[in-house]
Amino acid sequence: MTDKFKERLKKCISLMKSEGIDALLLAKPANMFYLTGDGRLCSFAMITKDGTVALGVPQTDVEDVKELAKFDHIAGFENEVGMIHSIAHYFKDFGISKGSVGLEYTFLTQSMMGMLTHPHAKPEGVIAKDCTHIMSQLRMVKDDEEIKRIRAAAKVADIGMKAAVEAVNPGLTESQVAAEAEYAFRNAGAEEFWRTYVASGPRTNIAHGLPTNRKLQKGDLIMIDIHPIVNGYSADMCRTICVGEPAKKQKEAYDLYLKAQQDTILKVKAGVGIDQLEDTLQGVLKDGGHKEHIFGPPIHGVGIEFEEAPLPPGHAFFHGEKEAPPLEANVVIAVGNCGLYLGDFGVRVEDTVVVTEKGPLVLTLYPRKLVI
Amino acid sequence: MTDKFKERLKKCISLMKSEGIDALLLAKPANMFYLTGDGRLCSFAMITKDGTVALGVPQTDVEDVKELAKFDHIAGFENEVGMIHSIAHYFKDFGISKGSVGLEYTFLTQSMMGMLTHPHAKPEGVIAKDCTHIMSQLRMVKDDEEIKRIRAAAKVADIGMKAAVEAVNPGLTESQVAAEAEYAFRNAGAEEFWRTYVASGPRTNIAHGLPTNRKLQKGDLIMIDIHPIVNGYSADMCRTICVGEPAKKQKEAYDLYLKAQQDTILKVKAGVGIDQLEDTLQGVLKDGGHKEHIFGPPIHGVGIEFEEAPLPPGHAFFHGEKEAPPLEANVVIAVGNCGLYLGDFGVRVEDTVVVTEKGPLVLTLYPRKLVI
Repeated sequence: MTDKFKERLKKCISLMKSEGIDALLLAKPANMFYLTGDGRLCSFAMITKDGTVALGVPQTDVEDVKELAKFDHIAGFENEVGMIHSIAHYFKDFGISKGSVGLEYTFLTQSMMGMLTHPHAKPEGVIAKDCTHIMSQLRMVKDDEEIKRIRAAAKVADIGMKAAVEAVNPGLTESQVAAEAEYAFRNAGAEEFWRTYVASGPRTNIAHGLPTNRKLQKGDLIMIDIHPIVNGYSADMCRTICVGEPAKKQKEAYDLYLKAQQDTILKVKAGVGIDQLEDTLQGVLKDGGHKEHIFGPPIHGVGIEFEEAPLPPGHAFFHGEKEAPPLEANVVIAVGNCGLYLGDFGVRVEDTVVVTEKGPLVLTLYPRKLVI
Repeated sequence: MTDKFKERLKKCISLMKSEGIDALLLAKPANMFYLTGDGRLCSFAMITKDGTVALGVPQTDVEDVKELAKFDHIAGFENEVGMIHSIAHYFKDFGISKGSVGLEYTFLTQSMMGMLTHPHAKPEGVIAKDCTHIMSQLRMVKDDEEIKRIRAAAKVADIGMKAAVEAVNPGLTESQVAAEAEYAFRNAGAEEFWRTYVASGPRTNIAHGLPTNRKLQKGDLIMIDIHPIVNGYSADMCRTICVGEPAKKQKEAYDLYLKAQQDTILKVKAGVGIDQLEDTLQGVLKDGGHKEHIFGPPIHGVGIEFEEAPLPPGHAFFHGEKEAPPLEANVVIAVGNCGLYLGDFGVRVEDTVVVTEKGPLVLTLYPRKLVI
C-alpha cells in the first residue's frame, strides 16, 4: 500500500473510532475510490477499525481491480446472492458480530440498504449507522495530487466551454451545444463527465436545466454548466452567454450576478466560513433588488464528485451532511452554483476555486463574458 | 388532461387500491414523467386514490412545468424546508391523515427518504410502503406513442453506433470512442443519454466497463454500449468489434454469444416468460462450454429508462422488483445484457426488441459484426 492510502486509512480509522464505528461497509464509487484507489458500480468495500480493507466485486472484475486498488482481501461474486454471502463472510472473518457498521445513507437506496443489511449479510448484533459525514470529513481537504487532478479537469473544462460557446448559433439545439462541450473535453483527456446542463431562453430560469432539443433563438441567453472528470477528479464551471445582443435587463442581471460571484471569490481564504461566502453572494444580489430571485446553494465542494461536501449549512442538513467547519487550505469549492432567476430568464456563472492561506486560486479560467 | 394521462391515472389508481395505498409520493423523474408528462430533479408528485395529481417543484420551475405537465395542483418551493412544507400542505389539503403512502424504495436514498417522511412532511398516522412494483407494472406495457419514441431512440442509437465503430482505430482512447457515439446521437436528435460504456482489451472482461483513457491496440476487442434518449424514451444497444483481425478464441466466443443472443431474440413473443429467455441465452453459452463465463442478467425492460422492469426473477428480487409476469405484447426489452467473460476478454451484443403477438420486432439494427 502506498503512503497516500496508508495515510487516508489512518485518518479514516481515527474518525471511525471517535464516532464509535467498528467497520465501514461502502458501496459508493467515490468513497471506495478515495480509500482504495478503485470505485466501481455493484461493488463494496469493508474497512475495519483495525485497518483491514476488503473488497467485493463482480467476479469478472477481479483482475482489473487488482491492478487499481489497494486492499488486503478480495472476493469476486457471481450475483446478488454471492454479494450478500461475501459480506457475511467478511463480517465473520474479521470477528465483527456486534458493535456498529457505517453505511452511506446519502447514497444507498432503500433496496440497496436492504441488500447490505440483509440478515444473510449483516450479523444481527451489528447496528447500522450513517457514515456520510466521516467520508465527507475525510475527503474535504485535498492533497497536492488531488489538486493537480482537479486542475487538469479545470483545464479540460476550459477547452470544453470554449468549444460549446464558439458553437452557439441560432438554430442549434441545446443538446448540440452540450455535444460540442463533451466531444471537446473527451478528446482533451476527460475519461468521463457528470451530466452536462444546457438551458436556453426561458429554460435558463429553471433550477436544473438539462439539455433538450429546443433550438437557440436570437436574443436568448444560454446557460452551459459542465463537469468533466480527469483521472477520477472533477471540475465544475458554468457560463451564461447571449445569442446575439443582450437586452438591457439581461445585461444588468448578468453584471450583477458576476459581481456577486467575483466578490465572493475574493473572500475565499482559509478560515472563512462557507456561510460567510453564501451571505456575500446573496448579499450582492439582495442589494441589487433581487431577494426574490435567488435559488439554490451558491457554494459546494468539488473533488471526486463535482458536487460534494462542504455544503452550506441548511442544504447540508437535508443532504445528510454535517455543518461544515470553516474552510481550510486545500479545500476546493465551486462558487456561483445558485442562479439569479428573473422569471423569463436566469443567469449563472460558476467557477472551481482552491482555498489557500492567502486567498482564492481560481482553476477554471474561460472568460466570463455575456457577449462573445 | 389528455386521454393518455387520464388512462394512466385510472390504471394507477386501480393498482393503488388493490395494494391498499392511499397516495403515491413520487420523486423519481421517470415515474413522474410517466404519470404527469414532466419529471425533473428535486421535485415530487403526489397522486391520491381519488385521482388528484399535485406537483411540487423548485419555485424557478413553475412556469416551465405548466407547459409540460398535467396536474391539478402545483406548488413552487424555495428550498428543502419549503419542499417539506409543500408535502405537508398536500397531505392536509387532501385529507390524508392515516392509511399508507407509496414511496419509491428503489430510488430514494436514506436521506431523501428522511426528507419525504420528515415529521413536518408526512402525518404520523400515515405509513410508508414501497410502490416500486406499482410503477413498474404500470409502465411495463408500452402504448403506440411510447413504442414510436423508443423506435426513434433506436434509430439514433444506430447512428451513434455507426459513428463510434467507424472511428475505432489503434491509438484512440475509449473515451474518444464514446465521444463519437455521443456527438453523433446528440446531433441526430437525442436530447440526452444514459452513461455510455466503452471498454477495450482486457477491460472488456469487466461487468460495467465505463470509458477510460486506455488507448486501443491492434487485436483488442472493444465493447460499445449506448443508450440515447429521444423525447423521453431510451434505446439500449451494445456491439463488440475487433481492432484489426480477431484471434480464433475471440471469434469463437463472439460467434457463440451472437448465436445465443439471436436464438433468444427468435423466442421473444407474447406469452413467453423472461426466465425462458434467460434460460435460452444461458443455455447456448453453457452448451458451448462456458457455464463459468456468464455474468449479469441477460434481459431487462427498456422504456423511459434504458434498464427498467421487467427483470429476470433473481435480479428482480434484489432490485426491489416483483417477479415479472409472462411478457405481453408491447413490452420492450433489451436482449443480450449479460456478457461472456473469458478472463482476458469479454463479448456482448445487445439489442432493443419489441414483444409482439407474432414474435420479436428488433428496433436496433446496426450490423452485428466482429470485424468491420
